[in-house]
Amino acid sequence: MTRPTVYGVGVGPGDPDLMSVRAARLVGAAKVVAYFRKAGRAGHARTIVEGLLADGVVEEPLDYPVTTEIPLDDPAYASTLRSFYEDCVARLSAHVAQGRDVVVLCEGDPFLYGSFMHLYHRLLGDVPVVVVPGISGMAACWTASGTPITYGDDVLCVVPATLNATRLAEALKTGDAFVIMKLGRNLPKVRRSLEAAGLLDRAVYVERGAMAGETVMRLADKPDDAAPYFSMILVHGQGRRP
Amino acid sequence: MTRPTVYGVGVGPGDPDLMSVRAARLVGAAKVVAYFRKAGRAGHARTIVEGLLADGVVEEPLDYPVTTEIPLDDPAYASTLRSFYEDCVARLSAHVAQGRDVVVLCEGDPFLYGSFMHLYHRLLGDVPVVVVPGISGMAACWTASGTPITYGDDVLCVVPATLNATRLAEALKTGDAFVIMKLGRNLPKVRRSLEAAGLLDRAVYVERGAMAGETVMRLADKPDDAAPYFSMILVHGQGRRP
Ligand SMILES: C[S@@+](CC[C@H](N)C(=O)[O-])C[C@H]1O[C@@H](n2cnc3c(N)ncnc32)[C@H](O)[C@@H]1O
Ligand SMILES: C[S@@+](CC[C@H](N)C(=O)[O-])C[C@H]1O[C@@H](n2cnc3c(N)ncnc32)[C@H](O)[C@@H]1O
Repeated sequence: MTRPTVYGVGVGPGDPDLMSVRAARLVGAAKVVAYFRKAGRAGHARTIVEGLLADGVVEEPLDYPVTTEIPLDDPAYASTLRSFYEDCVARLSAHVAQGRDVVVLCEGDPFLYGSFMHLYHRLLGDVPVVVVPGISGMAACWTASGTPITYGDDVLCVVPATLNATRLAEALKTGDAFVIMKLGRNLPKVRRSLEAAGLLDRAVYVERGAMAGETVMRLADKPDDAAPYFSMILVHGQGRRP
Repeated sequence: MTRPTVYGVGVGPGDPDLMSVRAARLVGAAKVVAYFRKAGRAGHARTIVEGLLADGVVEEPLDYPVTTEIPLDDPAYASTLRSFYEDCVARLSAHVAQGRDVVVLCEGDPFLYGSFMHLYHRLLGDVPVVVVPGISGMAACWTASGTPITYGDDVLCVVPATLNATRLAEALKTGDAFVIMKLGRNLPKVRRSLEAAGLLDRAVYVERGAMAGETVMRLADKPDDAAPYFSMILVHGQGRRP
């Protein structure tokens, strides 16, 4: 018998077949699963494991508080999230205290952005935590694009579109290949930054990589600025190709 | 019946349990597997699938030509590799012409550096090619490090240590988090660049992520400059942590 443990399990980018063998085994055997979701939504990580959970599994949906009205730099924003994460940790810890493992379903890879890490840091020391890496959304997107992301000596920069225009411009100056995540309402700004950096022609827009509705197009051909949560822009490297 | 196809299958960073469900299924059902290796070595991707291959599978080891004596910028280097890749493609295409699928085993993710892409570009158009993404070596390494690689708005730069000191210094100026791959003999140069960038204290050295002999230590504590092929350096992001 091992001590009750919280598993942060990367369930991959969307297609359940892209879960690792270890993740599939943990998910299928789980007695308690937890997952983040927007209140009123299914939760993407939960959707990925649909049909794989055991009968009688206990579900702990972790509903994000509504923060859209609070500016990111308002202290109220951080404190709202802090109490949310503390509450999540209390809920998971209660299961562990009663001898139950908890599997936290994480989109893509748990340690590449995402929310799990905010639980992870709070659990560490008190509760055993095991992290299972996953195939990231960006790997699904560059696979969908049909072109490798990096060759030879290419430098790859992964850039959140939430940066301000100055920092975006700076990030696009270094690097041979780029992945621009978290598009959402930031697409017009990203388009302008790519254009200024001379990268617009090479930019590829990918929506819902490895999910139903997967879409790939040149950004220059995208007629609108609507970008759902699961979308990103790729600029492929052009390094050594013997 | 689908047309005979070449599958470029990411087999993940090392532990066979970190292969995707789809990769494990393709590997287990393969009638022909191909994989790169250094002549005289087992080949890492081949090692990962040991015990998973079907009886009677045909193996096509693709032995890298010895290029250590040729400078990277000598045209002989590129032309040696070119004829090697052409020969590989001919061997795979011969199977396809005779109606057999070929599974090419790729370390980590097939489209993140690596050699498969050089076959991929040559096969495209002539032969159906399907790519299955995989968990990258870097995900295994940051998982092994016990700390998420990026938070919030962090910019992540993936940098090959094969760059010259000037380009290394440039790459280390942008970005909040770094992954420095392909260490090998480049470790002394990387150490100096990290020191100059003020990043040495945060640098973590990871060897053989998700493989037997996995090792994690602060780079500052690493007493020597010996770095095997499967090693990298991480500098974790320090972004928003509510
Ligand atoms: C908070 S990050 C989480 C990343 C995740 N941990 C991973 O490893 O992919 C969310 C962003 O990742 C990107 N993303 C993740 N999965 C995706 C997918 N399957 N298709 C397109 N974009 C995806 C989107 O840009 C999204 O805004
Ligand atoms: C040519 S790149 C191939 C990367 C591979 N396609 C991937 O997705 O991980 C080889 C480099 O990746 C890094 N690497 C790959 N797997 C690793 C592992 N399991 N542990 C440590 N480093 C690894 C090392 O820096 C190595 O020199």
